Amino acid sequence: MCVKLTCDILDTRLSTPAVINATLDKLSNKFADRREKHLGYPYNLDFDAWPISQFCKFLINNLGDPYVGSHYATEVCGVEREVVDWFARVWECADPEEYWGAVGASGTEGNLWALYLARETLGNPVLIHSTEAHYSVPKAAKILRIEALTCEADHTGAICPDALREVVQANRHRCVILALTCGTTMKGAHDDIASCISVLDQVGIDPSRRFVHVDGALNAMVLPFVDGLPSGIRPSFRHGIDSMSTSGHKMIGTPMPCGVLVVRREHVRRVASTVSYLRSDDTTLMGSRNGHAVLAIWNRLTRLGIAGFRHFARTCIGRADGFAGALRSASVPVLLNPCSLTVVFPKPSERLVNEYQLACHGNYAHAIVMPNVKADLIDRFVGDYTAEWPCNSRQKVFS
Amino acid sequence: MCVKLTCDILDTRLSTPAVINATLDKLSNKFADRREKHLGYPYNLDFDAWPISQFCKFLINNLGDPYVGSHYATEVCGVEREVVDWFARVWECADPEEYWGAVGASGTEGNLWALYLARETLGNPVLIHSTEAHYSVPKAAKILRIEALTCEADHTGAICPDALREVVQANRHRCVILALTCGTTMKGAHDDIASCISVLDQVGIDPSRRFVHVDGALNAMVLPFVDGLPSGIRPSFRHGIDSMSTSGHKMIGTPMPCGVLVVRREHVRRVASTVSYLRSDDTTLMGSRNGHAVLAIWNRLTRLGIAGFRHFARTCIGRADGFAGALRSASVPVLLNPCSLTVVFPKPSERLVNEYQLACHGNYAHAIVMPNVKADLIDRFVGDYTAEWPCNSRQKVFS
Amino acid sequence: MCVKLTCDILDTRLSTPAVINATLDKLSNKFADRREKHLGYPYNLDFDAWPISQFCKFLINNLGDPYVGSHYATEVCGVEREVVDWFARVWECADPEEYWGAVGASGTEGNLWALYLARETLGNPVLIHSTEAHYSVPKAAKILRIEALTCEADHTGAICPDALREVVQANRHRCVILALTCGTTMKGAHDDIASCISVLDQVGIDPSRRFVHVDGALNAMVLPFVDGLPSGIRPSFRHGIDSMSTSGHKMIGTPMPCGVLVVRREHVRRVASTVSYLRSDDTTLMGSRNGHAVLAIWNRLTRLGIAGFRHFARTCIGRADGFAGALRSASVPVLLNPCSLTVVFPKPSERLVNEYQLACHGNYAHAIVMPNVKADLIDRFVGDYTAEWPCNSRQKVFS
Amino acid sequence: MCVKLTCDILDTRLSTPAVINATLDKLSNKFADRREKHLGYPYNLDFDAWPISQFCKFLINNLGDPYVGSHYATEVCGVEREVVDWFARVWECADPEEYWGAVGASGTEGNLWALYLARETLGNPVLIHSTEAHYSVPKAAKILRIEALTCEADHTGAICPDALREVVQANRHRCVILALTCGTTMKGAHDDIASCISVLDQVGIDPSRRFVHVDGALNAMVLPFVDGLPSGIRPSFRHGIDSMSTSGHKMIGTPMPCGVLVVRREHVRRVASTVSYLRSDDTTLMGSRNGHAVLAIWNRLTRLGIAGFRHFARTCIGRADGFAGALRSASVPVLLNPCSLTVVFPKPSERLVNEYQLACHGNYAHAIVMPNVKADLIDRFVGDYTAEWPCNSRQKVFS
Repeated sequence: MCVKLTCDILDTRLSTPAVINATLDKLSNKFADRREKHLGYPYNLDFDAWPISQFCKFLINNLGDPYVGSHYATEVCGVEREVVDWFARVWECADPEEYWGAVGASGTEGNLWALYLARETLGNPVLIHSTEAHYSVPKAAKILRIEALTCEADHTGAICPDALREVVQANRHRCVILALTCGTTMKGAHDDIASCISVLDQVGIDPSRRFVHVDGALNAMVLPFVDGLPSGIRPSFRHGIDSMSTSGHKMIGTPMPCGVLVVRREHVRRVASTVSYLRSDDTTLMGSRNGHAVLAIWNRLTRLGIAGFRHFARTCIGRADGFAGALRSASVPVLLNPCSLTVVFPKPSERLVNEYQLACHGNYAHAIVMPNVKADLIDRFVGDYTAEWPCNSRQKVFS
Repeated sequence: MCVKLTCDILDTRLSTPAVINATLDKLSNKFADRREKHLGYPYNLDFDAWPISQFCKFLINNLGDPYVGSHYATEVCGVEREVVDWFARVWECADPEEYWGAVGASGTEGNLWALYLARETLGNPVLIHSTEAHYSVPKAAKILRIEALTCEADHTGAICPDALREVVQANRHRCVILALTCGTTMKGAHDDIASCISVLDQVGIDPSRRFVHVDGALNAMVLPFVDGLPSGIRPSFRHGIDSMSTSGHKMIGTPMPCGVLVVRREHVRRVASTVSYLRSDDTTLMGSRNGHAVLAIWNRLTRLGIAGFRHFARTCIGRADGFAGALRSASVPVLLNPCSLTVVFPKPSERLVNEYQLACHGNYAHAIVMPNVKADLIDRFVGDYTAEWPCNSRQKVFS
Repeated sequence: MCVKLTCDILDTRLSTPAVINATLDKLSNKFADRREKHLGYPYNLDFDAWPISQFCKFLINNLGDPYVGSHYATEVCGVEREVVDWFARVWECADPEEYWGAVGASGTEGNLWALYLARETLGNPVLIHSTEAHYSVPKAAKILRIEALTCEADHTGAICPDALREVVQANRHRCVILALTCGTTMKGAHDDIASCISVLDQVGIDPSRRFVHVDGALNAMVLPFVDGLPSGIRPSFRHGIDSMSTSGHKMIGTPMPCGVLVVRREHVRRVASTVSYLRSDDTTLMGSRNGHAVLAIWNRLTRLGIAGFRHFARTCIGRADGFAGALRSASVPVLLNPCSLTVVFPKPSERLVNEYQLACHGNYAHAIVMPNVKADLIDRFVGDYTAEWPCNSRQKVFS
Repeated sequence: MCVKLTCDILDTRLSTPAVINATLDKLSNKFADRREKHLGYPYNLDFDAWPISQFCKFLINNLGDPYVGSHYATEVCGVEREVVDWFARVWECADPEEYWGAVGASGTEGNLWALYLARETLGNPVLIHSTEAHYSVPKAAKILRIEALTCEADHTGAICPDALREVVQANRHRCVILALTCGTTMKGAHDDIASCISVLDQVGIDPSRRFVHVDGALNAMVLPFVDGLPSGIRPSFRHGIDSMSTSGHKMIGTPMPCGVLVVRREHVRRVASTVSYLRSDDTTLMGSRNGHAVLAIWNRLTRLGIAGFRHFARTCIGRADGFAGALRSASVPVLLNPCSLTVVFPKPSERLVNEYQLACHGNYAHAIVMPNVKADLIDRFVGDYTAEWPCNSRQKVFS
């Protein structure tokens, strides 16, 4: 999968500018080529980050707390706050003043930091997450030494409220961190946030003893723009959640992995400590945050606007429906959750998995209909897939 | 400090491409302007990342383990391994096959991940670090719930072996993580790695009960290129350390904050778990790593080569000596550690602190002589500083 | 007006990469700054050429005839032909196959080459152009040793058909090149192409003895997109003209000066000679043509489309009307031709001429309402202008 | 040879940003690919114009005379003058104040403008050029209606002084423009400037009746940097010439075709006329000149310096010698002029001509050893060429 780099970089006779440039060109060519058939990861590859490329001559470093800034002048904390405000509105924070947020290096960072803030808030809580939660959630628990319990998801990938009730009931004396998912990694399912919170209420885990985080890496930038969305799955702070995160390099479309976390401000105050030499507070995991990622997100949000994301949501959902329909017409069993762009089907041959860069799990695989996945790519894939389908047909599928 | 952005980005009438472009231009102008007088942070601003800017049209994402790669084709794990190999040689790893490394989002990430690996290796260790260690070290301990003890540094900022012995002695029954620093944040001091390890040996904390991490964010890319370096402070795996990290955006010079961690491979094996849908192992904190940062480091290492870094080290040390000498001639008390680029002096007026973006701590401040800090900038600063010096002269300085 | 460059470039001790980069940054800052108040030249500065910037690593050279291409592989003759086709349709060429075109270095090149083709076609013709024609027209006549006669324009800047008749009548025994203008430089006037050609017909200069060129540098990319345009001034090959040219860096918006010429193919055949080593024909002035300019035009045409240019035309005409109205309300005499974006008014003080980069001629000046000239810039200028207006009021204006 | 562009750009449904971007990527890939085997054109493809790419957001237009500048603020006339000064020194102008120069769109433009200035100076001169002069020289004569006479070159491609004497003698009553070549297109030959001028002297064409132009497109940026250069062929104003031009995209290495002309200032004064609305003089062919080309040349001159071009000259001459030697060892007849980079040999098969983008003329072809033509490319070509050599061996070669 890797390009063989032709120069041994310790051998300075070989690493001339011409060789270095040729290596970069080779990479660029390979990337352009492979992008065309990409189908498996939830990355919107139709972005245009050229206006941001002019900043490659600057080290843009957001140091310390985004709301305090730092002494280092080549920073974009002001832009970072604009970005967070945008999310705070889209995710329906009642009073943006009561929220804090930051742009981080990935969705994983958002989950880890949210769970850290939760732990610091609740002392010695138990974490409950579904079996379909992203692997970064149990990893964060391990890193943070938080006890974690899983709760079963149904066959669509969403948490089953009854299963949740059982786990919560068994831990009703403890403080609880509940990690929900808006768009599970493999099946694109949406946990019903409203129902899950009412389970906590019913069992008697009142707000002072709980912290609800929503991992919206996949779809927290899709669902707000869907017409006729069921209110329970809407990624919104109105449900009474404590934090929500999403990725920048998925539906938004940025050249680097990055993420955004929004959290109730009170939870951050607890961990803030002052770093005198930065003249800032230490309220983020990394300390240094990549300003280019901040600009890349801002560039997309401002150029696309709400209307642009609505257009994406409508078009992609339409195409995902068509995609699923085409497979079903060929008697392929397909899972496509409502308001979701993730089309799940039995795993094809290794050749197709590689060619289309499909993500697989067990005996199934998925494709994700991002804005760059157009009709012709879908048609080509469906053709290739159904051509070999009879050979796969005896395999066991989604239970 | 922040540019006031003129557009409310939710108001789509206002966020036209022209307004967005004008906002970006305004930022670019501000950055070019402020860069000229930058003196306080250890950032080599003389880099030229233009060849990398062509990749802004791709989402380059290194997923999973750098040595396994992933299914996603727009990745540069091969380049990442080349980068790690380069460091493994510069840091004198005996057999590069026995080491593992990765490019992360910052020096903080390197420290956090190293301490996490240490904790997983040793079970329930105690962490010992100096009072001059970077704030990310105690922060990592807090996040990881590792008990942390500090040990006094001497007035130059380096760990005092006797103080270390005392702390170790008191914890001789425990497993110990020792976090040393190659270039302390405020004073640019270098802990004597050889002496500190021999303290562990003498007290009887044998290698199976210890994990030594060197935080080389500041100077692990400076000292290997200094002529006549005392062997005890050389950032080298030959001392028997377990991990070392450095920053990419400091002496190397990259447009985004980033860092490199190299660690003995055996420690990583312990935490690896397989993520089936990525077809990779989950051996890094973030899961997703910024491929542009990998390319930016590679671009610098290959273009500069060993000779380039030697030239940087020689020139900067010479200029730092001249800088310190000029202040001393004006009777200013100055601290400049051997082989260091950090010039420490009494804190000047708030006006100069802001103008030169100086980092301050208590009653002192520092400037760091990176390759972009040339004679004319130093002269200008020394002139401005000494002009107001009598007003500062009665303040208490370094004890 | 010039940035003083700080380095003597022959002194290699001084021209280090850092100094070179700093010089470029200084230029970039100055440009961003001065662009904000630009009002005098017909340049659409609201373009976004970033996607083209990635090609700066290639020498893109269109050698020889655009319809033949050459042996050199890094060329975009295919794109150049697409661009010419686009113009051929917008300018209503009946059968695109009968036309030839190319992208050149400027509008001047288009005029020069058209007049050269005319001279080669007609032998020893006389050139007739108006007193308001661009200075490149008489310059081309001088270079080409063509006898040139001027014909009076009326006070709006357009050719007066009666004046034209008189000049043609006096030369009725000769072959005639008639150079018309679609958007005169100073007054933005449009010669009535249909009326002028019927003058030739009436005097008896039949098509075999004439060559009509339209210099559409200013407005041949504006008028085709205006609603309710009088048919006589439409820049169209339907009038029976022989060639038309326009600029790329005006309404289209490119980072470099460039132009497009479209001409009846028969005229080009006459001059074609084969250049064996290029494996192409030598049908253009330059031989080598800048492929980046070709891409820059193509990038704009494809991204904007007909709809984009219609939007520009509508918006700019509306703003120009408002601009003229605001000056007239302050009793300033103003000339604004129909369907034109050039607002002409008495020359203000030298301070304002410099601040807004106004083009002046005799006692008047003009501003041109390009898409980047927004309401706030117009308002600011009108305010500054009218504030000093009484001091100017006694000066003689347009006769 | 052309990439088939997939979108009909008038069909706006098809020209979405994604399609446009994909088309640009396809071009970029093709270019990177074909560049690797390029051998036939004298283009130094090892340039790095990234620092210039940041200016793609500005329309940089040098209007009017480079020494006057214009009202338009986004111009680099100051940089253009620095560039011209650099050439004036390298080409040994005694007093730079007595010279005028400009950056134009190509070498052809330089030749045309020089011959135009010559014609305006001498009234009704005859032009003498060799049969090996670039095709732009007779083309310029045709455009300018100057009578042109050719004079034979010897078998190496250089003017034979006796042949020249004969032509001059026959025209001794006329004013004479003599166009010499420093690096002929096909054979890389250098006319002996000193000998040719002494022919004029001997026949009695004194300086007031002559104008000597040197077309240095190919080698006027190579010979000044060659050790032990015979003084007669040195491209230098000390010989008493009137003008000299070279290309920017050949040895210098720029992404766009461009050229530089230096001429005695007195010749320019004659044609200068004032363009009031530009507040400049009209002393150039184009009026508008591409500022990006000016920056691209400046960027190369400053970064490479004299030392860089010396290194190029030495390395390339060495490689050209090796190249010629390798062919001769296989009994291939080869022409390689002294101090030249052009290796001439019998034309190979059409397959090799295409693969290596060779320029051919009659029964021979050439390769040009520019800095990007490294040993491995030469070896590969020599291998391919000699493999088919016996099949070619009976063809007639250089007389």
